[in-house]
Amino acid sequence: MKQRPFFVGIDVGGQSIKGGVVDDAGQPLSEIDLPTEAFGGNDHFLGRIDLAVERAIVAAGLPLSEISGIGVATPGTMDIQGGLILEPPNMRPLKNVPVREHVQQRFQLPTTFQNDANAAAYGEFWAGAGRGANSIVLFTLGTGIGCGIIVRDMIIEGEHSHGAEVGHIVVQMFDGRMCGCGQPGHLEAYASARSIVKRTKELLISSRESSLRSTPIGQLSGPSASPAEVEETLDARYAGLVFQAAATGDALAQEIVEDAAYALAVGAVNMMHTINPDRILYGGGMTAAGSPLLSRIQHHVHRLAFPVPAQKTQILYAELGTKAGFIGSAGCARRAYVQSIKAT
Amino acid sequence: MKQRPFFVGIDVGGQSIKGGVVDDAGQPLSEIDLPTEAFGGNDHFLGRIDLAVERAIVAAGLPLSEISGIGVATPGTMDIQGGLILEPPNMRPLKNVPVREHVQQRFQLPTTFQNDANAAAYGEFWAGAGRGANSIVLFTLGTGIGCGIIVRDMIIEGEHSHGAEVGHIVVQMFDGRMCGCGQPGHLEAYASARSIVKRTKELLISSRESSLRSTPIGQLSGPSASPAEVEETLDARYAGLVFQAAATGDALAQEIVEDAAYALAVGAVNMMHTINPDRILYGGGMTAAGSPLLSRIQHHVHRLAFPVPAQKTQILYAELGTKAGFIGSAGCARRAYVQSIKAT
Repeated sequence: MKQRPFFVGIDVGGQSIKGGVVDDAGQPLSEIDLPTEAFGGNDHFLGRIDLAVERAIVAAGLPLSEISGIGVATPGTMDIQGGLILEPPNMRPLKNVPVREHVQQRFQLPTTFQNDANAAAYGEFWAGAGRGANSIVLFTLGTGIGCGIIVRDMIIEGEHSHGAEVGHIVVQMFDGRMCGCGQPGHLEAYASARSIVKRTKELLISSRESSLRSTPIGQLSGPSASPAEVEETLDARYAGLVFQAAATGDALAQEIVEDAAYALAVGAVNMMHTINPDRILYGGGMTAAGSPLLSRIQHHVHRLAFPVPAQKTQILYAELGTKAGFIGSAGCARRAYVQSIKAT
Repeated sequence: MKQRPFFVGIDVGGQSIKGGVVDDAGQPLSEIDLPTEAFGGNDHFLGRIDLAVERAIVAAGLPLSEISGIGVATPGTMDIQGGLILEPPNMRPLKNVPVREHVQQRFQLPTTFQNDANAAAYGEFWAGAGRGANSIVLFTLGTGIGCGIIVRDMIIEGEHSHGAEVGHIVVQMFDGRMCGCGQPGHLEAYASARSIVKRTKELLISSRESSLRSTPIGQLSGPSASPAEVEETLDARYAGLVFQAAATGDALAQEIVEDAAYALAVGAVNMMHTINPDRILYGGGMTAAGSPLLSRIQHHVHRLAFPVPAQKTQILYAELGTKAGFIGSAGCARRAYVQSIKAT
């Protein structure tokens, strides 16, 4: 039972564009995926978005006339209110791309524009693990840490499109580990997949015993490793090896996972003492670590937060996986549609 | 030129209740102050609030019929949505006091209830240094650190009345200083007036040279100081001595002020990367330190924040002083009044 009206959601990433048609209840009617090809420049890139929208509609078996709005989400840097991509570091050479206006003109449909992490949070809020909550914070744990904050149907996008950059809050202001962004002490430097791999390599170099030595992460950490090999192990996918080793009792891996869980709990507590949402959700590749990671985060949150939010805030994994972004983008289009109906 | 409608704002503190009648533009028509007398218990306390409302109206020279609503703010712990004081540690033996319902019944006027730090932020947003901004974060620097967050006329009060407890976000998750709340590493443990005095005493004990030795803070820090004397110097008012000493070139005092400014900047950056407001404001007794403190905070914020918010976020002192709470409470009453008119 698909419920009208229908919306197209598009989630642009550095490598691929995901999209689909989503119904009024947040259920996808279609799901498509194509390479982003940012290297082709602004016009080529806008053409890729058009193609994604068209494919999503065709895959849903609907005519364009059945679509009530389009939502597009992209990675920063961006001007959300202006509908512009500015200069995203992972989408070179794109610069100052008027995404919202282009899509709106091309399809003659109301179009919304949002940050990808915010859209994913809105997706979970609308149709995922945040359903029924008044407010949520979503942390997306991948190579870095993305974040989106929804309070009473409002996306905390910030006045300068920098709301919910919670991977880059300072949690260690003296002697902090360096973050990928170049500043010390950020949450992302302690709890992203990349930071977990980096820390593992540091500890392996310090000659501690660990079953991780016989895995690629250990082999590529040795004194003979080339710079390219060292860089390769920083790939977030290697974090899975650390979680596996921890599950089988490896002490070094357990210490690393425990520290990451503690840092994630600190991030959660900081949001509980700022936003104080109903639910805090974790999505992204690192959630493959499953319940052992989640229960350690919950443990530390209960220990560190004020008693009332510690007792009442739900700490859960997200539900929508990689679909959260395009479902949330469609949700943003739906929200604008609902508001426009109310206004008339 | 006083503008109708008029609202009563009441700001309850541990020691005194402040209040006044405020006009539609946020200008006070009256200002009153009386002892809280929480020691008298729930009923006596509610009588004190009634008295404050009556005195505020009389002092404004208005009949009750000219008042369109009442706003009351109190310190936590509380249930904002329920209109209840729970068990504030500095207002013993009060417990489960139905403030909003009582005031509403007593005066037969729509009554709002809010946390005192949130009300102060709303006051600055409406009629103080936040006027004209879309969103602000206010830090109130006193014995502890209070905080209020306003985004597009919405007070981020949280689902469990714990929104904007930003004095208690973790900024040093390993080897953190102990906060008054019993948890380590909180912002308040680094940047409140009390923490500044505490740190000064620690450094004086470690035998460093400082002009502070000849001030009360030094005299009461010596090896012969009694526990009561040691406790007395923790009074936030002594922080003023440290700022004075820093201004006259005392190296130890300058180091302490610099570290506090850095910690306050970290708190500001964390809000810029979470809420990303137009303005961050500082109020409370510590702002007597004047422009040297503010300029050091600004310096560190520019260094630590992402470029766009670093450039665009205004970092300012608040304007309303101790009136912010009751003006903001009246503002909350006004907001409810405006919403009720829109709804009809």
